[in-house]
Amino acid sequence: MHEKKYPLVTDPHDHRFLTLRSLKTERGRSQTGLYLIEGIRHLARVIEQKAPLQLLFVDPSVLSNHFGQKLVRRLRQSGVPGIRLAPHLYRELTLAAEPQGVGAIIKQQFSTIHEVKMARDSFWLAVESIDLPGNLGTIIRTAEAAGVTGIFLLGASVDPWDPACVRASMGSLFSPRLVRCTVREFAEWSRVSGAAIIGTSPAGLLNYKALRCRWPAVLMIGSERQGLSERLIETSDYLIRIPMHGRCDSINAAVAAGVCLFELSSQRPSPSSRVC
Amino acid sequence: MHEKKYPLVTDPHDHRFLTLRSLKTERGRSQTGLYLIEGIRHLARVIEQKAPLQLLFVDPSVLSNHFGQKLVRRLRQSGVPGIRLAPHLYRELTLAAEPQGVGAIIKQQFSTIHEVKMARDSFWLAVESIDLPGNLGTIIRTAEAAGVTGIFLLGASVDPWDPACVRASMGSLFSPRLVRCTVREFAEWSRVSGAAIIGTSPAGLLNYKALRCRWPAVLMIGSERQGLSERLIETSDYLIRIPMHGRCDSINAAVAAGVCLFELSSQRPSPSSRVC
Repeated sequence: MHEKKYPLVTDPHDHRFLTLRSLKTERGRSQTGLYLIEGIRHLARVIEQKAPLQLLFVDPSVLSNHFGQKLVRRLRQSGVPGIRLAPHLYRELTLAAEPQGVGAIIKQQFSTIHEVKMARDSFWLAVESIDLPGNLGTIIRTAEAAGVTGIFLLGASVDPWDPACVRASMGSLFSPRLVRCTVREFAEWSRVSGAAIIGTSPAGLLNYKALRCRWPAVLMIGSERQGLSERLIETSDYLIRIPMHGRCDSINAAVAAGVCLFELSSQRPSPSSRVC
Repeated sequence: MHEKKYPLVTDPHDHRFLTLRSLKTERGRSQTGLYLIEGIRHLARVIEQKAPLQLLFVDPSVLSNHFGQKLVRRLRQSGVPGIRLAPHLYRELTLAAEPQGVGAIIKQQFSTIHEVKMARDSFWLAVESIDLPGNLGTIIRTAEAAGVTGIFLLGASVDPWDPACVRASMGSLFSPRLVRCTVREFAEWSRVSGAAIIGTSPAGLLNYKALRCRWPAVLMIGSERQGLSERLIETSDYLIRIPMHGRCDSINAAVAAGVCLFELSSQRPSPSSRVC
C-alpha cells in the first residue's frame, strides 16, 4: 500500500501527534485555527469541496476500505503531507465506534459579516447559543440539505469545529459559508442587509406554514432552553412558531430548524429566477 | 422534608437498588416489564399522564428544587412507594450531567396491533430499525408535538425504554400509544386498516410538500443507514421524499421525521370535523 510510505509515528511525545491531540480541545483549535475530521465520508467531502487540508493521518491496520485506501493514495501522490499513526495513538484521536483508519487536519474557514452579500434568492440560517455540539452539527447538515447559502454563528454558540459537531455534520461543514459574529454585529448588519429576518419562538404569533416572506431571507434559531435573545427577537421582521400538540412546549432545536428550513426552502425563488 | 420518611438504602446489595440498576440494561427491562425515568420534568409528565408509577427513588441531598420536592411529597402522601438512595448509589443510576435527585420505576405500556382502531383523523407514525436510542427518543418527542395518536415500533428498532431514549423523549413517552409488532404484522394490518400508508425514501417520486393524502394516515420512517425495508416500501400507498440540496444524500432520521410529521399535521382534518 502506497500510504505506508508516509512516515510512521509511534511516540506519544512526537510533536505531530501532540498537535493532533491538542485539536480535540477548544483551546488547541482556537490557538491554531485548525480542526480534525475523521472517516472516509468526511475525507471525500473535504476533497470534493476543496477544503484546506493540512495533514492526513492514517492507521493502515484499520483502513481496510478500498475507496478509503484509494483516496489516501491519491492525496499522497498529489503531495498532501501525511503521517501513519500507530494503532494506540490513532485510538486516542477517534470518536467513532468503528474507526475507519483515516483522518485529517483542516484549516478553519470563516467569512466576516462584512463579506456577506445577499443575492435575490440568498437563504441564510443564523443560530444563537446552541448548547450541544452534536445538535449544531445536525443543524449544519440539515441546513446544507435545505440549500442554505451560509450560516451565522451568533454569540456563545458551541465551537463548530468541536469533534462531536464535525461528526454530526456528516461532511456538511465544508459547504455552506460560516460567519461568526456577535449578536450586536448581526443586528446592525440585518438592518441594512435588505434580507427578511425571520425569528422563531414559541411566542411567535405567525404559524410557520402561513409565512410568505420576501427574499433574500435569514432564518434565526435559538437554543431549546433559552430560545432567541430579546435583541434578536426585536430584529425580526417576522416571528414564527411551530404549533405544538399534546403537552409539548418545545421540540429539539435541530428538528425545529429542519421543519422551518425545509418550509422556507420550498418557497424560495426558483433557480431560473435567481440573480446570483 | 417529608420525603425523608421514605426508607434509606445505602447498601449496594439491597434488592431494591439491584432492581433499579438492572433496569439500565435491556435484559433487566424485558424480564420485568419495567423501566426508569429520571428528573423533575419526566416525573411531572408521569403524574400528568397517569403513567403506572411503581416506585419513587430520591436523593434528598441533590433534590433542592422546590417544585420537585413538592411532587415527591404529594406522591408520598398519596401512598406511592419509594426509597431514599445514598448519593453514591443514586450516582450509579443517573445519565444526567446535573442530576435532579429524583426518579421512578414505571411499568412499560404497549398496545397490541389488534387493539388499534383508526378514527377518521387518526395520525400514526411507524418507525423501523432506528439505530440510536437518542434518535428514537427525539422522534417520539417530535411525534407528540405533531399530534400523533400513536407510534408503531417495527422490527429491530431500539428499545424505547432505553434510558437514552427516555431522556431524549423529554416526557413524551407517556402520551402517544406505543405498539410493538413485526414488519409482517404491520403489513398485514395496513391492508385492512383503511389508513393511507405513507412511506419515506430518497427514491420516492413524490415531493413531501406535494402530498395530499386521505385520512386516517400512517407515516413510515426508516433508519438513516438502511431506510425502509422493501416490504414496507411495497406496503406504501404513497412514497414521498424530502428534496435534498448540496451534496447531501440524507438528513438525520429525527429531523426527517419532524419535517414530514409537521407537514402532514398541517393537512390533518380540523378537530371540528373529527369523529373520534
